[in-house]
Amino acid sequence: MTALVAPAFRPEASLERLVELSRGDMARVDVLIRERMSSPVPVIPALAEHLIAAGGKRLRPLLTVAAARLAGAEGDAHLKLAAAVEFIHTATLLHDDVVDGSERRRGKVAAHLIWGAASSVLVGDFLFARAFELMVETGSLPALGILAKASRVIAEGEVLQLTDAHDLHLSQSLYLEIVSAKTAELFAAAAEAGAVAAGASESEIASLRAYGLKLGLAFQLVDDALDYGGISERLGKDAGDDFREGKATLPLILALERADGRGREFWSRTIGDRQQEPDDFRRARELVLSTGALKATLDAAAAYAEEAKEALRRFGPSSWRSALSDLADFAVSRGA
Amino acid sequence: MTALVAPAFRPEASLERLVELSRGDMARVDVLIRERMSSPVPVIPALAEHLIAAGGKRLRPLLTVAAARLAGAEGDAHLKLAAAVEFIHTATLLHDDVVDGSERRRGKVAAHLIWGAASSVLVGDFLFARAFELMVETGSLPALGILAKASRVIAEGEVLQLTDAHDLHLSQSLYLEIVSAKTAELFAAAAEAGAVAAGASESEIASLRAYGLKLGLAFQLVDDALDYGGISERLGKDAGDDFREGKATLPLILALERADGRGREFWSRTIGDRQQEPDDFRRARELVLSTGALKATLDAAAAYAEEAKEALRRFGPSSWRSALSDLADFAVSRGA
Repeated sequence: MTALVAPAFRPEASLERLVELSRGDMARVDVLIRERMSSPVPVIPALAEHLIAAGGKRLRPLLTVAAARLAGAEGDAHLKLAAAVEFIHTATLLHDDVVDGSERRRGKVAAHLIWGAASSVLVGDFLFARAFELMVETGSLPALGILAKASRVIAEGEVLQLTDAHDLHLSQSLYLEIVSAKTAELFAAAAEAGAVAAGASESEIASLRAYGLKLGLAFQLVDDALDYGGISERLGKDAGDDFREGKATLPLILALERADGRGREFWSRTIGDRQQEPDDFRRARELVLSTGALKATLDAAAAYAEEAKEALRRFGPSSWRSALSDLADFAVSRGA
Repeated sequence: MTALVAPAFRPEASLERLVELSRGDMARVDVLIRERMSSPVPVIPALAEHLIAAGGKRLRPLLTVAAARLAGAEGDAHLKLAAAVEFIHTATLLHDDVVDGSERRRGKVAAHLIWGAASSVLVGDFLFARAFELMVETGSLPALGILAKASRVIAEGEVLQLTDAHDLHLSQSLYLEIVSAKTAELFAAAAEAGAVAAGASESEIASLRAYGLKLGLAFQLVDDALDYGGISERLGKDAGDDFREGKATLPLILALERADGRGREFWSRTIGDRQQEPDDFRRARELVLSTGALKATLDAAAAYAEEAKEALRRFGPSSWRSALSDLADFAVSRGA
C-alpha cells in the first residue's frame, strides 16, 4: 500500500468536463455496442441489453476514449477498442455473477436469475469473442495484445479470489493483488489500448497505463468504503452487501487488524462463521469507523488518485488532461 | 443435407500417415500447450491439465498443422495457432460441461465436479484469453479474425441449442445449423487459420476451410451414430448417453420422422417425457436401425467426408494431401 496521506481533494470534482468532451465519441461507441451485440439468436441481444442498457457509468470505454484523445487520436480505431473494452467488462460481470451467485447487478435482477446460469455463461463467451472481433477490425495487434493479457489477468484474479480469499485470513497485500487483477487491470488496459490506438509514444503509453491502474485501485477502494456507508453514512441502497456476503475488503481487513478482543469475536462470528443478526451491519459500520479502518481505506484511495494524476503530468496541459484529472478526483470524492 | 449416397470407403483408413507426418510439429504444439497453461494461480494449470492431459485426439490442432503444411508453411506461426485452437476447444468443453451438467469428459470425472462450476467457468475464460495472447504473438490479424469469429459462432450455436433444441421438435435443418456452429465451425477455422499462417492463396484458404467444415460435420454425425452403437454395435462405454440425456441428434430426428404409431409413442415417452426404463436404450437402438435412421446418418456423414476430400483436389498430390484425405476416411470408418 502507498503512503496514507490524505490529499486535499476538490469537493467540486465532477465528471462534467469529461462527459462534455467525450459526448460525441461516446455516442458513437454506444452505436457500436448496440450494433455488435446483435445476433440471429434472440436470447443473446436480450440478455446483453439487460445488462448494457442498465447503464453503469461506462467508465472503462470512457477511459479508452479519453486516453486516446489526450494522446492525439484521430480516426475511429479507439471507438472500436472502447466498445470492445465494454464487452470484455460485461462478459466478466456475467460470469462473475454466476460464480458468486449474485442476485442483483446495476440495480436490476442479475441476468442468470432470469435467463439461467447457462445462458449467462454462454452470452459472456459471445461478448468476449465479439470484443476480439472488434479489436481485429482496428488492425492494432498491440492493442489486441494488451486486452488479451488483461482478460487473462482478470480470470487469474477471479480464480485467486475464489480459492485464496478465505474471509478472515486475507492479507492486505493479497487483497490488493486480487483487486489489481480483477478491477484495476482493465482500467489500466483500457487507457493503455486507447493510447496505443492513438499512436502514442512508449512513455505516453506507460503513463496512461499507470494512470488507469491507479484510478482503478482508487475506484475499487472507495467502492469498498461506500459499502460500509462511507464516512458520512451516505448509504447506497446496496450498502452492506460485502458484509452480508462475508466478503473481505480493505475496510474489514484493516478493522480486523486493529480489533480488540470483542471486535475479533464479532468479526469471527459474523464473517468467519457467517452468523449474522439484523443489527450486525450497524455494529460492523461502527467498528470500521472507530478503528479508523474506513478512513485509512479512503486515504489509500486518495493516495492512488494522486498517483494517477501524477502520471498525467507527462502530458502538457489540455482540456483532456484536466478532464482525466477530474476523474481521479471524482473517484475519491464519492467517498467523502 | 447432402445426397445420401454411401461412397465406398477404404476399410484400412487410418491416421498413421497423418500422425507420422505431423509428429514433430505436434510435439512442439504440446510443449506450447503445457507452457502456456501455466499460471501463478495453482488451480488453473491443475484444472487445465486434468482435461488437456486426458488427451482426446488433438484433432483440431492437428488440422491447423496439416492445413498449414499442405499449404507450404515454414516457420512456427502455425504451431502457436494450433495451441490456441486447442485452448479455445478446451475452454468451450469446460463451459459446455458446466452448462449441460455433464458428469464425465474424456473418460474422466468432469472438471466442474472436482473443482466446482465457478472454477471451470473462470479457467475456461483464462484459456480463451491465453488463446488470444498466443494468436497475437503470431502477428497474423487474419488468423485472429478467423478464430475470434469461430469463438463467437460457437457461443451462438451453444445458446441456440440451449434455447431452441426442444427434444422432439428439432428439425434436421436446425440440428445441422447447431452442429455446424458448435462443432464444424472450429474444424473449419482450425484448417483455415493454418492455411492463412502458411501464406496460402485466397482459393487455397477457402478450400481448406471447406475441408475442415465438412470434416467436422462428418465427425459429429458419426459420433451421433456411435452413441446409438453404430451399425455393428461397437458400443463404446459411453454409448446411450445422448439417449439418456434426451438429446436430439440426427439418428433420433430421422427415426422420429420415420416412426409408426408405436415408435412415436416410444420416443414421446422416453425423450419427450424423459420417462426411461432400463431396457429402453436397446429398444431405441432397434428403432434407429430398423427405420434406417442410423444408416442414413452414416450415409450423410460419408457424403460430407467425400465433399471434404473433394475440397483437397485444389492441391496437387502430396503426402500431406493424402494424409488429410485419410483423416476424412477415418472420420467415417469409425462408424462402419
